[in-house]
Amino acid sequence: MQRHVLITGVAGFIGAAVAKDLLKRNYKVVGVDNLSTGKLENIPSDVEFIKLDVSSSHLKSLLAAYSFDGILHIAGQSSADVSYSDPIYDLNANVTSTLNLLQIAIEKNIKKFIFASSATVYGEQENPLLLSEEQTVNPVSFYAVGKLASERYLSLYSKEYGINCTSLRLFNVYGPGQNLDNLNQGMASIYLAQALRQKQILVKGSGDRFRDFVYIDDVVQAFVSVLEANVKAKSIINVCTGKGTTVNEVCTFIENKVKLAKPTQFSGSTRGDIHGQTGDPTRLLEGSYVKSLTNFSDGMLKMIEWAQERQIN
Amino acid sequence: MQRHVLITGVAGFIGAAVAKDLLKRNYKVVGVDNLSTGKLENIPSDVEFIKLDVSSSHLKSLLAAYSFDGILHIAGQSSADVSYSDPIYDLNANVTSTLNLLQIAIEKNIKKFIFASSATVYGEQENPLLLSEEQTVNPVSFYAVGKLASERYLSLYSKEYGINCTSLRLFNVYGPGQNLDNLNQGMASIYLAQALRQKQILVKGSGDRFRDFVYIDDVVQAFVSVLEANVKAKSIINVCTGKGTTVNEVCTFIENKVKLAKPTQFSGSTRGDIHGQTGDPTRLLEGSYVKSLTNFSDGMLKMIEWAQERQIN
Repeated sequence: MQRHVLITGVAGFIGAAVAKDLLKRNYKVVGVDNLSTGKLENIPSDVEFIKLDVSSSHLKSLLAAYSFDGILHIAGQSSADVSYSDPIYDLNANVTSTLNLLQIAIEKNIKKFIFASSATVYGEQENPLLLSEEQTVNPVSFYAVGKLASERYLSLYSKEYGINCTSLRLFNVYGPGQNLDNLNQGMASIYLAQALRQKQILVKGSGDRFRDFVYIDDVVQAFVSVLEANVKAKSIINVCTGKGTTVNEVCTFIENKVKLAKPTQFSGSTRGDIHGQTGDPTRLLEGSYVKSLTNFSDGMLKMIEWAQERQIN
Repeated sequence: MQRHVLITGVAGFIGAAVAKDLLKRNYKVVGVDNLSTGKLENIPSDVEFIKLDVSSSHLKSLLAAYSFDGILHIAGQSSADVSYSDPIYDLNANVTSTLNLLQIAIEKNIKKFIFASSATVYGEQENPLLLSEEQTVNPVSFYAVGKLASERYLSLYSKEYGINCTSLRLFNVYGPGQNLDNLNQGMASIYLAQALRQKQILVKGSGDRFRDFVYIDDVVQAFVSVLEANVKAKSIINVCTGKGTTVNEVCTFIENKVKLAKPTQFSGSTRGDIHGQTGDPTRLLEGSYVKSLTNFSDGMLKMIEWAQERQIN
């Protein structure tokens, strides 16, 4: 029997990649996106696409005719920086949308709900290395506060209505398909886009900041494994590698592959930015949600080759 | 120079009491309320009243002509039970409203912002006695998740824009003026209303649950003291007494003052209800935000006399 899923944010980097993988596995995929940052050309052709904001009150009636085995809620305002310029937009995009979908999940008796949360919920920590899911959270941006509220709503729906809810706390996702036109979001993609187009990388913030970069294929695998898990998945799972890579290392890697005109420049900072964090992937690996994790140099090399092939420079 | 304040929820139990006190102190008070649970007759006559939902995008233009020394944001959906039946309404009433006001505070250069938060943000705790403001939070209702998100937004605005923000974590507020018609909210008022009207108290949940009951006059004093503080108030302050009173004790107290026809009955439970909690009032008292705390029997006696005088039975 063909399985049906609803994917929100299907025109975005992660949503489109998850959709593509599920179509290959013979799922029927209905996708929703408001195309605010997502692109129509990202959406795989076999997706049945609905252009709508996920927080819209019309969503319910537009989905009335469908039934789903699971919802993958990947849509959202994904820039911490943008969350500062319009906190109410951020709240609607990242929290109202979640409540809207959870309500639909109850009414349609959908038993699985997977939410793209974020490592930013950990925020500033005294010991930012190997953050486990049990770590006390400390969100320090509007974006992070919203993601955490959504996680908590999931856990309430899980408890009250028996929906099997999982929040995947995504660390820094990167890889082929990432939006090189959106310079508000995605450290690796911002630097790579600058390198290819302006022949110079301009870093907002210090070079010794570090992140846990997780490759898109591994992230897709995590979504699919949780969706297909027969035993109830944990309610929160870090999607990360456990390894930190500094901004300097990312820039040096790109500089070695892309000929630049000027040296990399560092200035200013981003509001709500955190110095560094790496996540503990024990739960991700022990649950076999991801078989093995791509290391940064292999993944970044593929991303650079993809970008160069598309002659985005 | 006359000082100006904006009070939201001015037609509610707490908002009206705070407005009354500030008017006595010669403040000019502008009040907003959507009258969803608040009552027009609660609003003191000297308040300049605007009927509007605080989450409305029209609020900004309606307030364009005013300037304020402070905002007291007391409006909100105040029933944990109702938050389950309509989580999106709860989110708008308790979180979008806060962001809307904080944005207005920046634009109007308002330096003080006081938010009526709730002890429910502590949620289920291993040791529910004397919860201090440093205690790790664990919200277990939609209402509590929303209140906590608002607190965090306040702290971001405080950090980013220098607004002096304080969240008052109100424990169980009770006293004369409480809405005896709203049986969704307020343990003391629900039981008292039942005793006076039906001559029987019907308790949803067990009798050994306990709460920290804080008298309305003390709550008003806390709001006013924080508003008038010359030094920056703490960002989070418990408004509580440090003493727990069980449901059984509340019922027995009422039974001794109001002649009932039938014995008190216990059945069922309320979703998102917590067994018991008392708060640590050290910060409240050491900051002299409240001079001394009213004990439960004195306060409850005044409340019963008030209700009987109004012949609400």
